[in-house]
Amino acid sequence: MKAGPSQEEIRRHNLGTLLRHVHLGGSTSRAVLADRMGLNRSTILGLVSELSSAGLIREELPQDTGRAGRPSLVVRPESDRVYVLAFDVGVDRLAAARIGLGGVFLGRRETPWPRGGFDSGEVADVLAGFARQLMDTARDGTLCVGLGAAVRGLVRRSDGVVRSAAHIGWKEEEFGEDLTRRLGLGLPVSVENEANLGAVAEHLRGAGTGCQDLLYLHGDIGIGGGIIAGGQLLGGDGGYGGEIGHMVVNPRGGRPCGCGARGCLESEAGERALLQAARRDPSATGRDAVRAVVEAADRGDISARAALHDVGDWLGIAVGGLVNILNPRTVIFGGTLREVFLGSAAQIRSRINSHALGAAREHLRLRVGELGDDAVLVGAAELAFSEILVGPLETLARTGA
Amino acid sequence: MKAGPSQEEIRRHNLGTLLRHVHLGGSTSRAVLADRMGLNRSTILGLVSELSSAGLIREELPQDTGRAGRPSLVVRPESDRVYVLAFDVGVDRLAAARIGLGGVFLGRRETPWPRGGFDSGEVADVLAGFARQLMDTARDGTLCVGLGAAVRGLVRRSDGVVRSAAHIGWKEEEFGEDLTRRLGLGLPVSVENEANLGAVAEHLRGAGTGCQDLLYLHGDIGIGGGIIAGGQLLGGDGGYGGEIGHMVVNPRGGRPCGCGARGCLESEAGERALLQAARRDPSATGRDAVRAVVEAADRGDISARAALHDVGDWLGIAVGGLVNILNPRTVIFGGTLREVFLGSAAQIRSRINSHALGAAREHLRLRVGELGDDAVLVGAAELAFSEILVGPLETLARTGA
Repeated sequence: MKAGPSQEEIRRHNLGTLLRHVHLGGSTSRAVLADRMGLNRSTILGLVSELSSAGLIREELPQDTGRAGRPSLVVRPESDRVYVLAFDVGVDRLAAARIGLGGVFLGRRETPWPRGGFDSGEVADVLAGFARQLMDTARDGTLCVGLGAAVRGLVRRSDGVVRSAAHIGWKEEEFGEDLTRRLGLGLPVSVENEANLGAVAEHLRGAGTGCQDLLYLHGDIGIGGGIIAGGQLLGGDGGYGGEIGHMVVNPRGGRPCGCGARGCLESEAGERALLQAARRDPSATGRDAVRAVVEAADRGDISARAALHDVGDWLGIAVGGLVNILNPRTVIFGGTLREVFLGSAAQIRSRINSHALGAAREHLRLRVGELGDDAVLVGAAELAFSEILVGPLETLARTGA
Repeated sequence: MKAGPSQEEIRRHNLGTLLRHVHLGGSTSRAVLADRMGLNRSTILGLVSELSSAGLIREELPQDTGRAGRPSLVVRPESDRVYVLAFDVGVDRLAAARIGLGGVFLGRRETPWPRGGFDSGEVADVLAGFARQLMDTARDGTLCVGLGAAVRGLVRRSDGVVRSAAHIGWKEEEFGEDLTRRLGLGLPVSVENEANLGAVAEHLRGAGTGCQDLLYLHGDIGIGGGIIAGGQLLGGDGGYGGEIGHMVVNPRGGRPCGCGARGCLESEAGERALLQAARRDPSATGRDAVRAVVEAADRGDISARAALHDVGDWLGIAVGGLVNILNPRTVIFGGTLREVFLGSAAQIRSRINSHALGAAREHLRLRVGELGDDAVLVGAAELAFSEILVGPLETLARTGA
C-alpha cells in the first residue's frame, strides 16, 4: 500500500490516459476527451500539446462530419509514425506484424512452419528476419516503441521463458531472451500465452469491448483460455492462469491428454477429439478440417452431427462450471472454436443452462470472436503498447526518440 | 479511464492507506509507516495528527521493546472506540460480533437456528436484536462505522439481495434491505457470500497473508469458494463468482446436487457425500460428524478411509483444474474442509499433481484456514471496514461523529 502519487506522476498518468483513449477510441475531439477524463479543457489542451510535440498524436480536421458549420479539430494517433512489432508463434505458422498506434496493421509477414520443427532460437531467427523486412518498409522518422510475442504454451511472465508448449515441443525455452537478442532493438520482448492475448484483444477491440468480466476460449490444435476479471487479465501467481483447456471435465473415462492427465477439456473437445468423433483423420487438424465437419453436419452427416453434439456437451459443461467460478458477462469463442460454436451453439447453451447457477448466467452472452485469426497478433501488439500507454514521454526517451 | 487524482483525493488516499496499515498491521511506528508508504516523516506526522484528532488512531509508548534507550511512539488503532458490526447467517446458526478497528473482537452473540426455519425478515430481527445487545455494551463515545453480513448463497453485490441460498431455503430475499431497516443505524449493510468473505479474511489476517493469488474453499453443509486474484476478490459481473462448489467434476454418473445439476464438487465431496460414503447418517452433518469420520479413518475404519479417499479424489481433481484456471499461490481449506483436508491431504495432493500443469503448481501451497470458524465474521467485518479505510474523514462525517 503506497502513498498517493506526486504531481509529476499525475501528469504522467494523464498523458498515458489521454493517449490510451485515442489509441483505443480513434479520432476524438478535445471536448469529448475532457468529458471522458473529467478534466477541464485547458488541462486537456496542455496534454494534447505535449503529446503532439512528442509526435504521438496530431490534431486535424475530422473527415466529413455531416454537420454544417466549422467542425472542431479531432485528436488522432500518429499511427504511421509510432508502431510496435507483434509476433505469433502458432502451432504450424509463424507470423509477425508491424502495428501502428491506434491498432492499425502497417505490414505483415508469415510462413508455415513444420510443427515441432524448430527450437526457440531458430524460431527467433525467422521472426527477427520478418522484423527486419517489416522495419525496412517503414519510412524515416518512424519509431518502434514496443515488442510483444504470443506462444501457445505456459509462459513465465517475469522473463518470457516458455515453461512448456506441448504442441510445438518446447520445454524451458528462453524465447523472450532469444528473440530480444536477435532483434537487437534495445527493447525487451514481452511474451504471453496466445489465448491470454486473444482475451486482451477481444476485450479491447473485439467482441468484449466495454465488458469487464469475460472469458475467451481459443481453439486450434489445443484449447487455450484467457480470463479478464474486473477489467484485468487474470495471470495468477506466475502468469500461468487461464489454462481452461486443462480443466478436468471427464476425470473418469476421459481420453489421455497431451499434458499427462486424462479427461481435460482439450482432450474431450479439441480439434482431434472432434475429428475422431466425426470419423475423420484426427491428425489433419486445422480450420478447414473443422469447417468441413460443421458443413457435413449441416448436410445431415450422422457422425459429424454426433461429433458436434459431443464436443458441444463438453464445452457447455466446462463453460457452465466456469460461469459458476468466474461469473463472466461474456464468453467468446475464438480460433477454430468459432466454427465449433456456430455448429453446436444449441448444445453448448443447453449444457450451460443445466450446469450454471441461474443468477450467475442470467446476463451471460455467448459470442464468437470478432477479430478472427488476428486476435492473437492484436493482443501481442497491445502487450507491446502497454508501456507507452503508461508513461508516454518516458518510453519515448528510453526508445531514443 | 479517468484522469489522475486531485491534491484532495491524494490526501484522502494517504489517510486511508495509513489507517489501513495500522488496521491490518497493528501498532506501527511513524518511521515504519513512512518507509512503507514512501512518504517523508513530516507528511506522515500530518496524516497521523489528522487521524488522531478524528479519534481513529492514537500514539502511545510501545509495550516493552526489549531495547535500551527511549522508545519511539507507535501508532495504534482506536479499537475500543471505532468498530463495526459483523453478521453471519450460517446454515444452522446465527451470529453477530462487534469488532473494533484493528480486527479486535469486542463482543459476540450467537444462537442455533432451525435450518430453513426463518425468512429473511425474521433472521434480520434476530440479528438486529444481537446488534442492540452488542451496542449496549459499548461505552459512550464509541462509534459504529460499518455493517457487513455473510450469507451462504448467491448475493447480488449491488443491493444485497440473496438470489438463492439453497441450504437455508431462500430465494430472492431482500436481506440487505431487511437488515438495514431493522438496525436503523443510518448505515447500509453490505452483504456478501460467506466463502468470499472467508477468502478475504484469510487473505488479510490468516493463512493467505501477503499472498495476492489465493483460493479459499469453505466446507459446511455445502462447499463454498472465494477467489483472490491479483490481491482483489474476484466477484465477476454480478458478484456471484467463486461458486467452486458448483464446478462440475463428475458430469457423467455424478450425484444430483441441490442446485439442479449433477456431479458438482459439492454433491461429490460435500459433508453429505462424505458421511454417506462412510456409511453414516448423511443428514447429521456438521463439524463433529466430519471429525468423527476422520478419527475413524485414523483408527483404520475401512468405510471411513474409503470415504476420505473418494472425497480427497474429487477435491484434488477440482483443485487441480482450478490451479490450471487460476494459478493461485495458496489454496486454503476452511470450515469443515479443514478436517477433511487433514484426513485426506495425500490423496488431494496426488490428484493435484496428476491434473495440474507442472508450471502452474510448482509454487503451490496447500494450507488449512488459520481463522477457524471466525473466518466468515472476520471477513464480514473487513467488508464493513472497507469504506472507512478508503475515506476515513468522509466516513466519519457521514456516520455523524
